[in-house]
Formats: sequence, structure tokens, C-alpha cells
Amino acid sequence: MLIVQKYGGTSVANVERIKAVAERVSKTVKQGNKVVVVVSAMAGETDKLINLAYQIASNPSEREMDLLLSSGERVTSALTAMAIEELGHKALALTGRQMGIFTDAVHTKAKIERISAERAKNALNEGYVVVVAGFQGITETEDVTTLGRGGSDLSAVAIAHALNADLCEIYTDVDGVYTADPRIVPDAKKLNKISYEEMLELASLGSKVLQTRSVEFAMKYGVPVVVRSSFNDNPGTLVTKEDEDMEKVVVSGIAHDVNQAKITVMGVPDKPGIAARLFKGIADANIVVDMIVQNISSAKEPDKPATDISFTVPKADSKKALKITEDIAKELGAKGVDMREDIAKISVVGVGMRTHSGVAAQMFDTLARHGINIMAISTSEIKVSCLIDAKYTELAVRVLHDVFELAKAA
Amino acid sequence: MLIVQKYGGTSVANVERIKAVAERVSKTVKQGNKVVVVVSAMAGETDKLINLAYQIASNPSEREMDLLLSSGERVTSALTAMAIEELGHKALALTGRQMGIFTDAVHTKAKIERISAERAKNALNEGYVVVVAGFQGITETEDVTTLGRGGSDLSAVAIAHALNADLCEIYTDVDGVYTADPRIVPDAKKLNKISYEEMLELASLGSKVLQTRSVEFAMKYGVPVVVRSSFNDNPGTLVTKEDEDMEKVVVSGIAHDVNQAKITVMGVPDKPGIAARLFKGIADANIVVDMIVQNISSAKEPDKPATDISFTVPKADSKKALKITEDIAKELGAKGVDMREDIAKISVVGVGMRTHSGVAAQMFDTLARHGINIMAISTSEIKVSCLIDAKYTELAVRVLHDVFELAKAA
Repeated sequence: MLIVQKYGGTSVANVERIKAVAERVSKTVKQGNKVVVVVSAMAGETDKLINLAYQIASNPSEREMDLLLSSGERVTSALTAMAIEELGHKALALTGRQMGIFTDAVHTKAKIERISAERAKNALNEGYVVVVAGFQGITETEDVTTLGRGGSDLSAVAIAHALNADLCEIYTDVDGVYTADPRIVPDAKKLNKISYEEMLELASLGSKVLQTRSVEFAMKYGVPVVVRSSFNDNPGTLVTKEDEDMEKVVVSGIAHDVNQAKITVMGVPDKPGIAARLFKGIADANIVVDMIVQNISSAKEPDKPATDISFTVPKADSKKALKITEDIAKELGAKGVDMREDIAKISVVGVGMRTHSGVAAQMFDTLARHGINIMAISTSEIKVSCLIDAKYTELAVRVLHDVFELAKAA
Repeated sequence: MLIVQKYGGTSVANVERIKAVAERVSKTVKQGNKVVVVVSAMAGETDKLINLAYQIASNPSEREMDLLLSSGERVTSALTAMAIEELGHKALALTGRQMGIFTDAVHTKAKIERISAERAKNALNEGYVVVVAGFQGITETEDVTTLGRGGSDLSAVAIAHALNADLCEIYTDVDGVYTADPRIVPDAKKLNKISYEEMLELASLGSKVLQTRSVEFAMKYGVPVVVRSSFNDNPGTLVTKEDEDMEKVVVSGIAHDVNQAKITVMGVPDKPGIAARLFKGIADANIVVDMIVQNISSAKEPDKPATDISFTVPKADSKKALKITEDIAKELGAKGVDMREDIAKISVVGVGMRTHSGVAAQMFDTLARHGINIMAISTSEIKVSCLIDAKYTELAVRVLHDVFELAKAA
């Protein structure tokens, strides 16, 4: 088999961890596999570099930021290759450029356009373990780019696709994907298998095991991904195409996200084009809007129809989003703008929902029975999300985990 | 003017120092100059990385070592470009590859073969300050190389030549080149001007201000180099072609080197080819031999002529060199091998020696008058070197500085 193994920051945090990675790679090679290793920067290194940059410049150039940050993964790739050689294998460290990862020129969040993997292919055929610096690529004009936070996951999945690998293993500091956050729900179960779609909902909703874009990429090209721990030999969670087994399970997991803020524009005149004006303004500021809910306002003046629009944005962007919203609200003649940061989004996720009804009703009923008020609801084919007061986060996750009997799952 | 400014590790050691570099660059630009900045890794970073590598592998791959070490200068180049932009200039950080520094494939001590400076030239014409990661290059097969310790000096001089720059300024933590080490001779004078040849002798003899290969390169192509401090505005020392002024000064400086070990092979049969056999063995192990002195042995058996051969090697290589020498000595039928590490090489340097006689005699006499025994002597056109007991190093430097009246120089 050809296996791509990606090791995150905590898995290469120090000399001992890097040696442990080399041991695992060595074992995989001795089992008769060809191995491509993709590494992140040593834990803490990227933040250290970002911190240096902001001490030097209030608004550092993104091109130079990419050059700066790409150094962390280069260091790890070289050290990891040395550690693998020390165990008697041939190893070749490749930078993003040497791996042929060409991206667009959108610095700090570049998109992979193509991978020219000839050098890696040749090295694999010559018996080398190839060790790739994750998170980075290069533009057609030879400038270094990075793929955004968690980008090494995307590097690994894209390389697995380019090399037509049999498996892409993502090594991290947790055993896999759980039915809920084990810190909140002690009897949360590890899932043996999960669909790409479910993983997308769980990852983007706060179970930060795998970067969202890497899951989208894996789904698009059908790359089988296993999420597992580099600290033990537990088998992990396979992320793969939806299958019949999965559909029998109605709910796969409960996700929560406390990093969103809710902004509500009250009394917006109910005319076409209003929402477009508002969300274009926010998108222009590169702020990602998550949930959007439009409520019919209990209009006191029925001849002047008005609505309330609520939406959530990452807390990091909330001040900026509030300012933009207030400006646009004024221009649109809205009654006012309100923001709440002490909120949580609780989501019930499962591909089984496609064929089973009643999940949403059971969720609302369960929250109500525990006195948890729902501020907004949003649904997709395979999930139901509710915004609630943040102080009920743990309670909501636990009671939903119970009611959907997830401790029996896996 | 087009000026290349190189900043060493202590000059970019932290955020404050990098900001100070940016201020100096800004000032130079505002005076109407185009500027190319070449930076080293932040002080201590390269050693930190080397240390990591040796914790991981007893004999780390040199190719991977180069990839590892090159990251330090990339970090500094990005941070320095950010700092320059913060002062309102346009700045572009370039890696060794982006600067087009092509080298041979001798990893960890690669030689520059050519520089394709188009990108840098275009950027300069567009008004950018170009900031280059020093110490690194790239092979024709796209592998990262490094130029050996102090290689950023060579990067700077080679780039100055490639761009036909008017001046190459080497910023370090000392004011320039002194008549002797000021820590030993408090009234040592800074030299305003020195010839390439003298600088070569002084640099390779232990006044480690400028990397030897960078001086050779500057001499070969006539690149004017100024060595000066990044911690003040003192004018520094100009390293340039020999001129009439210089020839009037008989002795320019006193150098000392305590990092050599002396190995003596005793009672070597005096036959052709013996020295060649010995030094080929040592060269094959990549050990650089400095002084070589062959003494006629006071032969007890006049029918079997024999000699003693002494030579010096860097202390770091002394154990290895001793082993090789012992093996060859046995094979050659020599009487024995002896090694001393507590030695110092003291050198008197000056282009004026070409036209003035008596310098050597005065040196020997001065040492003798102070009870300092000379173990070996070696001379060139512009220097005389003596090996002495290391404990007399400071005394020897001081009395020679006095006798050649260098405190009055500069």
C-alpha cells in the first residue's frame, strides 16, 4: 500500500515526539508499505513566528508572512527525515515547492491548483520515505504561500490524491472523532467510521479534529482518511463515503461551537434586496457568516412590513461585523442592531436524518425539558443546529448525547 | 548608489535590533540610494537548529541539514522586510532561490556558481528594498544548499558583484578591523582602510570579522567592502585594493589564533612522496591543514636521513587528524607522532612587508626578549606567523603591537 501519514504540531512537538513519529513510519515501511509523511510545524512555533511579526509590524505583508510561517514546517520536515534515516531507512525531505504544490497567489490562505508529484514519485520508487513540509505551496511566480490554519491536513489529503495513495492517515493528539466532546460527555464514544458529510458538519461546528477544507477535498476526490492518535496504537476513525451501515444510525454526534457571536438587525423594512445588501457588506470585509435566520417581525404597523435578521460570525470578527452592520442598518432604515457573544451553537449531526424524521422535534423537546431556550434554529439535510445561551452548553450536549443514545454507538 | 548591506546574527538578534536595522536601511534609502539587505539568522538560531539535529541523528544527512539551517535566514528576511515596510518603504524578501543564487551540490559548504539576479534587479527598479536570506543557495536540481559558517558574508559580496553594486557594507557587532584584538590590547586602533590581502591574512588568522571566502571573492572581483557596526554610526574599515598609502605602513595588525592544534610526525624517512602521502590522507578526511613546517631531524644515523614534519589543524578536527596521522606514520616507518593543543599562532600582517625588510627579525627578537619560545615559523609575502605556547598569547600580541607602534596607526 501507499500510505500518506500526516503528523500535527503536538505529534512533532519535540525531539522525543519526532523520534516516535520515525518509529511509527519505520514500522509502517517494514509492513511492506510505501510512506509519504506530511508534517506540521512543532507545536507553538507558528504562534511564536506570528507573534514576532506583530511585534514588528501592525499589519505585516501577507507575502512575507507566508515566507516567515513556511519555515516552521521546513524545520520539522528536515528533522523528521533525519530521524527516519537514523532508523536505517532512506528519507528525503521535500518543501512545498519540491513536492510541486502549486497554489494561487492568495497569500495566507492559498488554494492548491495542481500538484506536480514527479520528484516524490521517483523518490518513492527508489525506496525513499518522502517527508513533506505541510501547510505550504508555491505560486507559478515562485512565491511561497501557505494554505491557512490547519493547512497541513489539506496538504496531506491533496498529496494522497495526487499520488493515488491507498490511505491518508491524519495523526493528532486525540483517538479519532467522538460522538461528542469527551471533556463534556465522559461516556462519549469514538466513531469507527463516519461519512465525509458528517465529518464536515462536525469539523466546521467545533469538533476541530480535521480541517474543513481537507474534508471537502477528500470528499470531492474520494480519498479515504483515517483520523487517529500518534500517542497510541488505537485504530482511529475512518472518514469515507456514506454507506448503508451509516444510514442505520440516525444521529452520529453532537457538536458545539462557542466561538460565534450573534448579531441581530431589528425592524428591517421587508423589501427585496435587503439581505443581499447586508451580507455583501460583511462578505466584502472577508468575514464568514455562519447561521442566518430571518424572523417575521411582530409588526406593530401592518402596512409597513418589517423583519428581524439574525446571523452569526466568528467572535474574532464580531467588532468589525457589528460596525459594518450598524452602518448598513442605518442606511436601510432598520430599528436597531443587537449583538450577543455569550451564545453557543449546538448541533445534532447524522446522515441517517435523510431517511429518519423526528430528530429536530426530539432535539427541541429535550432542550425545552431542561429549560434551555432556543434563540435560533437552522437545519440542513444531515444536521439540526440551535443557538442557545452559552452557559447551557455542557448541559445541552450531555442531554442530547443521552437522548440519542450515543453512548451505545460506535 | 546601489548599496548592499549585510547584517549578522547579533545585528538581527531580536525585534528591537531588527527595527534598528530597518531604521538604518530607511535612512540609507532616504539619502537617495537603492538598497539590498542580506540577513543572517537571529543570533543563536542556527546553533539551536544544529543542536536539535544532533539530538535526533548522530550523523544527520547534509542535504536535510541544509534545508533545516536555511530556515533561520528565511525567518529574518521576512521579519526584516516587514520592519522596512512598517517605515513606509516597499520591501521584498527573497530566499536564496528567489535571489537566483545557484550553487554546486556540496551540501553544508556549497560554492556559488552563478547568480540570476533578474528578479532582484526588477524589484530594485520598481523601488523596492530587496531583503535577501543570506547563507543559502539552490542547486540546479532545486535542492537547498548552505554556504558554510559565515556564509552570509559571501552571499552579500556575491550579490554586490552580481548587481554591480557601488558598495558592500558588512554590519556586525564591532566597529571594524583593528590592529589587534581590543580585548587583549586596549589601545588597539581601528584601521580606516586595509587591503584584501591583509584582510585575508587577518580573517583566516583569527580576527573573525569577515568570512575568508567572502574576502577572496571580493578581491577576485574588486568589490569594495566596508566592515562596520550596526550598533553605532562609526565609519568602519574599508577593505579594498592595495594602494600607495597602505604600502607606507609596514605592519597593519597582529592576529592570533588559539583554535589550532599542532601535530608532529617524528623521524620520518626523508624520501620523496612522504609529505604527499601524509597530507593526502588528511585532505581526504576534509580536514584543513594550516601551517606546515618540515624540520631537518638531528639524525643520529646519518646514513638514514630522517625529518620531522609539523602541521596545524583546527582543534575540532584534531582527534580525527591524529588518528589518521598515526596510521600513516606507522605505514611510513616514522618514529612517532606527537600532538599539542595548548598552542597559539601569532601573526604580523602588512602589505608594507613586500618592500620593507626586517619585520620577521624584529618579531623573533621581540618574542625572545620576553622569554617566549617559538615552536614553528611560517611566512608569506605579507605576514610572518609563529607558533608559541598558548599561555603567552596575550603577552605576545601586546608586545608585538607595541614594538610595531600600531597604537599610533589608523
